[in-house]
Amino acid sequence: MLYYLSDYTEGAHPRILERLQESNLVSQPGYGEDCFCAAAREKIRAACRKPAADVYFLVGGTQCNAVTIASLLQRWEAVIAADTGHINVHEAGAVEFTGHKVIALPQQGGKLAAETVRDYCAGFYANETRDHMPFPGMVYVSQPTELGTLYSKAELEALHAVCGEYGLRLFVDGARLGYGLMSPDCDMTLPELCELCDVFYIGGTKVGALCGEALVFPKGDMPKHMATLVKQQGAMLAKGRLLGVQFDTLFTDDLYFKISRHAIELAMKLKAAFVEKGYPLFADSPTNQQFPILTKAQEEKLRQYAAFETWEPLPDGRKAVRFVTSWATREEDVDALIAVL
Amino acid sequence: MLYYLSDYTEGAHPRILERLQESNLVSQPGYGEDCFCAAAREKIRAACRKPAADVYFLVGGTQCNAVTIASLLQRWEAVIAADTGHINVHEAGAVEFTGHKVIALPQQGGKLAAETVRDYCAGFYANETRDHMPFPGMVYVSQPTELGTLYSKAELEALHAVCGEYGLRLFVDGARLGYGLMSPDCDMTLPELCELCDVFYIGGTKVGALCGEALVFPKGDMPKHMATLVKQQGAMLAKGRLLGVQFDTLFTDDLYFKISRHAIELAMKLKAAFVEKGYPLFADSPTNQQFPILTKAQEEKLRQYAAFETWEPLPDGRKAVRFVTSWATREEDVDALIAVL
Amino acid sequence: MLYYLSDYTEGAHPRILERLQESNLVSQPGYGEDCFCAAAREKIRAACRKPAADVYFLVGGTQCNAVTIASLLQRWEAVIAADTGHINVHEAGAVEFTGHKVIALPQQGGKLAAETVRDYCAGFYANETRDHMPFPGMVYVSQPTELGTLYSKAELEALHAVCGEYGLRLFVDGARLGYGLMSPDCDMTLPELCELCDVFYIGGTKVGALCGEALVFPKGDMPKHMATLVKQQGAMLAKGRLLGVQFDTLFTDDLYFKISRHAIELAMKLKAAFVEKGYPLFADSPTNQQFPILTKAQEEKLRQYAAFETWEPLPDGRKAVRFVTSWATREEDVDALIAVL
Amino acid sequence: MLYYLSDYTEGAHPRILERLQESNLVSQPGYGEDCFCAAAREKIRAACRKPAADVYFLVGGTQCNAVTIASLLQRWEAVIAADTGHINVHEAGAVEFTGHKVIALPQQGGKLAAETVRDYCAGFYANETRDHMPFPGMVYVSQPTELGTLYSKAELEALHAVCGEYGLRLFVDGARLGYGLMSPDCDMTLPELCELCDVFYIGGTKVGALCGEALVFPKGDMPKHMATLVKQQGAMLAKGRLLGVQFDTLFTDDLYFKISRHAIELAMKLKAAFVEKGYPLFADSPTNQQFPILTKAQEEKLRQYAAFETWEPLPDGRKAVRFVTSWATREEDVDALIAVL
Repeated sequence: MLYYLSDYTEGAHPRILERLQESNLVSQPGYGEDCFCAAAREKIRAACRKPAADVYFLVGGTQCNAVTIASLLQRWEAVIAADTGHINVHEAGAVEFTGHKVIALPQQGGKLAAETVRDYCAGFYANETRDHMPFPGMVYVSQPTELGTLYSKAELEALHAVCGEYGLRLFVDGARLGYGLMSPDCDMTLPELCELCDVFYIGGTKVGALCGEALVFPKGDMPKHMATLVKQQGAMLAKGRLLGVQFDTLFTDDLYFKISRHAIELAMKLKAAFVEKGYPLFADSPTNQQFPILTKAQEEKLRQYAAFETWEPLPDGRKAVRFVTSWATREEDVDALIAVL
Repeated sequence: MLYYLSDYTEGAHPRILERLQESNLVSQPGYGEDCFCAAAREKIRAACRKPAADVYFLVGGTQCNAVTIASLLQRWEAVIAADTGHINVHEAGAVEFTGHKVIALPQQGGKLAAETVRDYCAGFYANETRDHMPFPGMVYVSQPTELGTLYSKAELEALHAVCGEYGLRLFVDGARLGYGLMSPDCDMTLPELCELCDVFYIGGTKVGALCGEALVFPKGDMPKHMATLVKQQGAMLAKGRLLGVQFDTLFTDDLYFKISRHAIELAMKLKAAFVEKGYPLFADSPTNQQFPILTKAQEEKLRQYAAFETWEPLPDGRKAVRFVTSWATREEDVDALIAVL
Repeated sequence: MLYYLSDYTEGAHPRILERLQESNLVSQPGYGEDCFCAAAREKIRAACRKPAADVYFLVGGTQCNAVTIASLLQRWEAVIAADTGHINVHEAGAVEFTGHKVIALPQQGGKLAAETVRDYCAGFYANETRDHMPFPGMVYVSQPTELGTLYSKAELEALHAVCGEYGLRLFVDGARLGYGLMSPDCDMTLPELCELCDVFYIGGTKVGALCGEALVFPKGDMPKHMATLVKQQGAMLAKGRLLGVQFDTLFTDDLYFKISRHAIELAMKLKAAFVEKGYPLFADSPTNQQFPILTKAQEEKLRQYAAFETWEPLPDGRKAVRFVTSWATREEDVDALIAVL
Repeated sequence: MLYYLSDYTEGAHPRILERLQESNLVSQPGYGEDCFCAAAREKIRAACRKPAADVYFLVGGTQCNAVTIASLLQRWEAVIAADTGHINVHEAGAVEFTGHKVIALPQQGGKLAAETVRDYCAGFYANETRDHMPFPGMVYVSQPTELGTLYSKAELEALHAVCGEYGLRLFVDGARLGYGLMSPDCDMTLPELCELCDVFYIGGTKVGALCGEALVFPKGDMPKHMATLVKQQGAMLAKGRLLGVQFDTLFTDDLYFKISRHAIELAMKLKAAFVEKGYPLFADSPTNQQFPILTKAQEEKLRQYAAFETWEPLPDGRKAVRFVTSWATREEDVDALIAVL
């Protein structure tokens, strides 16, 4: 069975397992105060060209979102997201569980436009009864989005600008950041991203790690008492070294970017094959998630060879489905899939 | 430097790393629905002699406590704990963050007596204004306790009985459960523990795993929609296999118990040395945490050789400190420490 | 100045003040256990023709919404509302503060259609990853709505039916219920409403009381420990008699319905005048809130005579505004306003 | 039956009802922006001799506690209280429901000593693992306490000093403040209280109002967006005028203090009678709550004539009970009670 279900269906990049083994019996303090986390933080700062950035390692994406949002928002503030945003749809209400509203705004192709945010905020501040409404305090976007699409540099600059106008922080969910940055369509670098947002994370779980996300505050303005806030949300890892070793490995010799590029190359090959064989695309994704539309017959045939997720049933009976490549996808398996399309 | 700071200062038992490597490229679904979690659940059920138990893997101890308590309590209920209990003292208010009160009651040697719970509940139900008070809904205890002490089977039976009288669930925090069960002073087995509580967890993080706790509902009455509750607290691990592989390994060939016994043997050797050399003990612990009391001179000398934690400054200027052994402690390092006592 | 700002700009119906005076020195227990609350509950049960209904008095509308939703939902559940619903827009995130998500769905004229709810729920239960989403557990509607419109009996029956299909409770916010029931367009009675929902409240604050809402569980299935839940949300009134006396008065000799009818008659007179004089209406409201659209010149002129709220600026520069009548509105003041239209 | 159950068993001081009637049909905006609230705020500022103080009116005591604590604390902070404190015992976990821990410390006669707070904070800041603990952020005391006792000026100064040392805010629950200030044992005035704390409230519910508490920030540093925070907790009263008219009345011609003194004079008369007739006192209260200890026979006899609350059953079978006087207590009823003691 060819496995395209998601980008978290295998373990870790082999180099990570090697490094876990090499470092295994080095005694180090817990809670992220170990030498591996320290080294990983330095390498991430260097990759970001932000020597004063704060970096905090967490275990997973939803956790990262809930911790970041609940730690940065004031109690009277809500977070704005695309209505397709992960925090609005697929996190079981984790943000609301911390007491904050998600203000869901319309999107196009999974992307939230700066104008949409501006219109909402202008309406909010023009409203005489706004004291009875949660204040917009943050904008949450994913790069790439849940639909595999990418914000261009200009789009992110526009969001950054509107955030500046209304005193909003801009938070970029980078659970698949590597696959975004290595896309041929991406027109921004990691250091450039750092200039355009207040906080973001570099996803490890989906990009070669067993687990782990590196939360980055490029301006070095992580909230006071962050460790206490993390602990309070049950998100502190006792053996922080597990995250440190992994990110240290991923940011040594550009491993993070190399394995991301591998996944993108295979995704583009697969996408080209879908297009060539006449499969319509539900979303035009330049990243590692591809969304062909299948007829019932096509789906039945393909499910004999490959595992993939149903994305959305269409009104006409066809289905948008999702094929995901990752650092672990083998070129021969992509060729095998293409052969049966 | 001899390292006695805690039981989470090294990586994982080598067999775990081997198994992570062997299984690394097997493609499996996420979120704990993989074959490794399934196998691990079976092995834990067998070790518990509870074929119908529910087992849910989580990443860490505080997370496990907050998820379990918030998932089992009704909104009007609070959890009773010893005032020294981990949830009352060292979790940054994680239980309260989920909206529930911790009712802290007095303890002896870190242990909550059944009579203390009974008196509290009797007073509560005799109080005419109890509708204005949070209802006691659960009792939380640690086995072993934060002070390394152990509940005897009779003590746990008494707690179980009072819980039955007042409709409380009994939750046992087993972050160090292996070190408890393998203590020479422990008079209960894992299957016996299963009969005496409603929910408990088998700590992995402190007993040879990189991370992970196995939450066990011996009666098979895990709350409905547990996955959604876990997700809502940001506690769901995408690559659940990381937990599955580790617990499968720990519960193969009794590895969990063997490595726990190793830590206990070294702790007992160390304790005997403390006693023999005239160091008073702050708590009489039969498990892997030892609490000698040091004068300032003793402390200064020992800190040249060993890393250990200050537990509590005493009024007379001396200090209770903590030495912790684990699966990773080497006998030669214990001998080296004893040599300089 | 003619006062049309809202329906809570005067004190209470004079009969209420009289009854407060008459009962003032009668000694009674607190927290709603007084004889006035008991009498008021009986009268409300009679008006509902539900002798076994549970009735709980609370102070205000947002409080009522937050308490009801947080008390009835399970932790994994969210509440569905129209995107214009009061809980989604004008309660400062009070529902989210209790940990629950508001799922905002599109509406027409402020009303949520049964089909919209059915489509959402069908999509939810067809989604393979629904465990990662908050479960729909309740539907919240207002009768009349925030736009003054009314659900017909058929519309409410359809909502009731879809709630039955998907195990949702139906909650009707009746902050202006009297003004709804007394509208010429309303095709349902209070007892009929009782058959069509699981819980609703009879608004007092906007219908002649100083404060107070009567939450009604027609089936008598109020949650266990309701008093504790109410207290936990800071919503319990020590002198519950204040609510009891008021509702007892309002439900004596049909006062509640009589004063509601008065407000509706004046609102219909005003609406007819708006229409006759060529003012377009932003919403076609058959209740006590009227929403004419004004040009800048019209607005400037009217603001010399009357106080009213801006509802929504329109893209063409005109403004939808709101005029509200109430039990306290005098016919002569309506005539005076009409004279200057 | 002579009624000594509590100080909220009658309606309101007659002057308040008169003023409600006089002002009833004056049209005013809602949410506390009316002229009555404005006037009341000015009179309270004058009584406090704090012309720049912020004053916010809320409906009830538990609500006031939960709103104040949740609005002033940072997310990583907890509130310190006496273990007998109202927020710790009798508010159904309302503070914890907002996500904050109550750190309960031992007390004497219901009072928290400055040294107890200092010891706790010193221990906290000496603890190397304090990042895993909720930070103390506020001290909560009641004046008078739940046991009727009073903090002396020196005691409050000492608490104020320790709060300054550790960056804690000092919050005084004044649900019965009038009865405290008018006690013969009270050595501080309202303006003096203003100098000794960061925030306090002047209880109306128990001192002659139908409902209402006036929250005072003497330094004028009420949190930003207070109205939004209040709304989010469901605590905003639509007809804020109800609170404004009442406090305006209470702070006209010293009515608040006069009626408080009346209650105290009767309480002292009653206390003297208890002592004279040989009833031991459970607490030596100089305020309007009196706590005699009764034998079973005494209790049975007194219950024929009077309604009063059981406070605490004593181990020897006797009972501490509570008799409460208020603005509404009649001297002839006190004499009647004394006659049967």
